[in-house]
Amino acid sequence: MHTEPEHDPAATGLAAALDIGGTKIAGALVDGTGRILVRARRPTPAREDAETVMGAVASVLDELAGSPLWGRVEAVGIGSAGPVDAAAGTVSPVNVPAWRGFPLVDRVRARVAGRPVCLVGDGVAMTAAEHWRGAARGYDDALCLVVSTGVGGGLVLGGRPHPGPTGNAGHIGHISVDLDGDPCPCGGRGCVERIASGPNIARRALAAGWRPGPDGDATAAGVAAAARAGDPAARGAYDRAARALAAGIAATATLLEVRIAVVGGGVAGAGEVLFAPLRRELRRYATLPFTRPLEVVPATTGTDAGLLGAAAAALDPRADRAPRA
Amino acid sequence: MHTEPEHDPAATGLAAALDIGGTKIAGALVDGTGRILVRARRPTPAREDAETVMGAVASVLDELAGSPLWGRVEAVGIGSAGPVDAAAGTVSPVNVPAWRGFPLVDRVRARVAGRPVCLVGDGVAMTAAEHWRGAARGYDDALCLVVSTGVGGGLVLGGRPHPGPTGNAGHIGHISVDLDGDPCPCGGRGCVERIASGPNIARRALAAGWRPGPDGDATAAGVAAAARAGDPAARGAYDRAARALAAGIAATATLLEVRIAVVGGGVAGAGEVLFAPLRRELRRYATLPFTRPLEVVPATTGTDAGLLGAAAAALDPRADRAPRA
Repeated sequence: MHTEPEHDPAATGLAAALDIGGTKIAGALVDGTGRILVRARRPTPAREDAETVMGAVASVLDELAGSPLWGRVEAVGIGSAGPVDAAAGTVSPVNVPAWRGFPLVDRVRARVAGRPVCLVGDGVAMTAAEHWRGAARGYDDALCLVVSTGVGGGLVLGGRPHPGPTGNAGHIGHISVDLDGDPCPCGGRGCVERIASGPNIARRALAAGWRPGPDGDATAAGVAAAARAGDPAARGAYDRAARALAAGIAATATLLEVRIAVVGGGVAGAGEVLFAPLRRELRRYATLPFTRPLEVVPATTGTDAGLLGAAAAALDPRADRAPRA
Repeated sequence: MHTEPEHDPAATGLAAALDIGGTKIAGALVDGTGRILVRARRPTPAREDAETVMGAVASVLDELAGSPLWGRVEAVGIGSAGPVDAAAGTVSPVNVPAWRGFPLVDRVRARVAGRPVCLVGDGVAMTAAEHWRGAARGYDDALCLVVSTGVGGGLVLGGRPHPGPTGNAGHIGHISVDLDGDPCPCGGRGCVERIASGPNIARRALAAGWRPGPDGDATAAGVAAAARAGDPAARGAYDRAARALAAGIAATATLLEVRIAVVGGGVAGAGEVLFAPLRRELRRYATLPFTRPLEVVPATTGTDAGLLGAAAAALDPRADRAPRA
């Protein structure tokens, strides 16, 4: 007898994935090969009370549960804007003020009929996605970064994502690469994010005399367009960001022997305006012999990284999951 | 029948340990509880040719093999000044110029009758020692540092030492905390070692006007004595070293959620002259909520750290050993 369904990866091992950010709450059903089979999405009511935000999550889950595939869901993965506490199952997203220590894992578990639920930070989720289906595939030791409004990241060590005890490992945006540098909103000084995030690139370019073009785009994307056209202040802002990222990536490689740094997020969309100085500066900071194999490449999983990473975490048979109630 | 010897930890699981540095080559037989039962030691003929250096290692091994306990040795562990390549089994200690890619594991294995031989860098060895018998005992995620002529380190992640693919993980001395800072001999800029090593503490104090006392001690220990007596230039040099160490330790905690930093080496002998500003500066750089539990404490395994760590690596049943010939 031919039992084809049992040999079809899409017929087993579905994960329900949630990607929770300050702008949107996305959900999906994802199969064991990384295919997204069903999607749902709501805007994040980020300025509302905690139960209203949870209501949007519940609405996404209800839509997914309405799919005929729901019965095949084995596990639920959540990637959330941080900070998160994966051990406690709680989240405190900076851009969702009503959620502080919000027991998201318990609240989701109550809606998914006893399925295991795991929680990771968004940097860890993006890293799991790039390791599963993206540019870090096949690398046992990797750093993945999201360079956008902030700078986040995650680690792969010894062949698997390394979330750390509370799911926050890989927070490269808040390591100091300039110990006497500008104060950072986190309380530190000279953090990678304070130099390399999109808003800080735009700020630095403006301070050096760059002005937005006729389209009025005053963001890092506007700076990148000017840099491509040769504007020295715009180039200088990207060079500085590249140096800070290089120092942070080199520090990670020196501490952990990571062999690849995968850079995603809106700022990575600047392409060679960012990557050319980044490769050059990495050679200046990653100097020890064991760091020489280090490569830096763009991310490939794009806007689905959060969903894919949450699914990867849910489907990883070795994953540490929050204790079940 | 009473089989006491089988229940005596000292009766089983002996390791032969080698600690190879630029000044001395130490060896020991170590039992499963961390007791050192036999010792041997030779000066390192660091300026001689490769075979002369190996001859000193062989002489230490021969002395250990002359012990009646040698027959109970199950495994051999080597901790060596770096860089090392644990995967290839080779060492290239900076202060032993004749050894570049020297196949130490193969050469030792040829003398120990087929016993497994494992190699780790000295930072990883000190970390394994502190995790096994010292201040990091009981911590699943830890950073250990040696602050001396250089600044080295090692990591414990998820409950066990994390040497990285080539045994060099934890090289905190060569992460940049000052991306525009002074050039470092490694080729980078503003490395932790460039600011916080003993010679750099002394250099900074002298540049700020400190002068050695009647005993003529111009080392970091002399600076520490002056700092204790209130000399502002001496205090300033330690404060600066503490800030660089704090930025590096905080970076490691932010990347890896380590909960304790254990500081050993000669510079740690300055005591509160170093540790008081170090604790203060850590609060300034380790700012994210998940880094708040971070403690910083002195190492406790002292000059035997290298031997204990090599033994711990040899006796770890889960250790990745270099492939046997």
